[in-house]
Amino acid sequence: MEKTLKAIGQKNQMLPEQVAEQIKELIIGNNWEAGHKLPNEFEMADQLQVGRGTIREAIKILVAQNIVEIKRGRGTFVCEKPGMVDDPLGLSFMNDKHKLAIDMCETRLMIEPQIAEMAAQRATIEDIEKLETLCDAVEAKIRQNVEHGQEDISFHEAIAACTGNQVVQQIVPIIQSSIMLFIDITKSGLKHHTIEEHRQLVEAIKDHDGKRASEVMTAHILQNQRNIEAITKATQKGDRYVKESGAQKSSTGA
Amino acid sequence: MEKTLKAIGQKNQMLPEQVAEQIKELIIGNNWEAGHKLPNEFEMADQLQVGRGTIREAIKILVAQNIVEIKRGRGTFVCEKPGMVDDPLGLSFMNDKHKLAIDMCETRLMIEPQIAEMAAQRATIEDIEKLETLCDAVEAKIRQNVEHGQEDISFHEAIAACTGNQVVQQIVPIIQSSIMLFIDITKSGLKHHTIEEHRQLVEAIKDHDGKRASEVMTAHILQNQRNIEAITKATQKGDRYVKESGAQKSSTGA
Repeated sequence: MEKTLKAIGQKNQMLPEQVAEQIKELIIGNNWEAGHKLPNEFEMADQLQVGRGTIREAIKILVAQNIVEIKRGRGTFVCEKPGMVDDPLGLSFMNDKHKLAIDMCETRLMIEPQIAEMAAQRATIEDIEKLETLCDAVEAKIRQNVEHGQEDISFHEAIAACTGNQVVQQIVPIIQSSIMLFIDITKSGLKHHTIEEHRQLVEAIKDHDGKRASEVMTAHILQNQRNIEAITKATQKGDRYVKESGAQKSSTGA
Repeated sequence: MEKTLKAIGQKNQMLPEQVAEQIKELIIGNNWEAGHKLPNEFEMADQLQVGRGTIREAIKILVAQNIVEIKRGRGTFVCEKPGMVDDPLGLSFMNDKHKLAIDMCETRLMIEPQIAEMAAQRATIEDIEKLETLCDAVEAKIRQNVEHGQEDISFHEAIAACTGNQVVQQIVPIIQSSIMLFIDITKSGLKHHTIEEHRQLVEAIKDHDGKRASEVMTAHILQNQRNIEAITKATQKGDRYVKESGAQKSSTGA
């Protein structure tokens, strides 16, 4: 049975935040997926017994939280990855970017080799085909000498997807795109390494060789770590390679 | 030199979203920490050459994103953990809660034993004192037979803090509190296990015995995993123990 909004007793006390919470529960309770259209303003105002202004304020809150999006003239829809924000760890608010980059590498070293191992054990034929396509896409961008950050994130996200673990699939792009908040990896001298190591990763996963996949991933991250250390040291306070509008940039991220 | 807001040329095109982005960059650029008071509405409207209504809309966006908070009659302040939201992985929007709980345990098994090991290697005397206090707090709540979820999260967060790694410290409470979105751990039969295993963890970290800390953490998570599997199997679709208003509940989480 489809869940609907319930009117709340004390009309005067109904805040936009509460209405936003109700709408969010409606989306979750009905399992509305990305792209599902929400009831219109009039219907929601009627069901909740609040003014249309309150509904509009609530929708604004949900837009800011990346839960719904407004398509002008068409209505309000559930977002692609509802609830996922650009910088969910709030890392852009941390002051010491050099330490942050090092900590990020340490965290990747904890998680990603194990993910690569699991990916090798579980990858389906379709998973491997997708990985190969994405590997080619990164390589093509690098050879064209254009920004390949987004493709790089997609590649590592696809490795995580091979595990079939939903949580891991959410965490990997966060870590990946967070790195890009601070470090412009395309400015690095790692391009040849990246091409070679990505290929080795795909081969190991294709061979279902978990141990090798884990080792290659470790080497890949260590390579990145050395590079980040070199960049941040060279720039002392790490200001030069830190993107001015990091948070804004990340909206093109995973 | 303190950064200020810059007026943007085309006044008419200045949307609340853009103003919100500007204010966010102001906070980051000036390294304003939690509790810092923002310039008032008039000043910001003047600097950006936009109307006060636009500023007010922008502030609402930043409130929804947990970046600033309004204290009535006092002003607008930077939040405690700016940018961190209740459910940053958007897990409450995922449909198969049983699979999600299992995936969550698998992810914890990847990360937390390594964190425990690193904690044992790096913990200072102060870290260990804090751990002992939090361990006692969980135990006290369990013995009083009251909800101990928040204390449990704080305990695991404190272990992560021993590593000195900022990223790990952000990820652990997310994973911990996400579990509580779906599973009411206080309904479990794990209370005695929890007390015993937490104590063993503190002892291993106190002895700076990384290997033992890692093993105890693995055993602790496996115990939780078996429990979650039992609960979710018993309730078939996992509806009974899934909290109706999970997302709202989590606001008390880490």
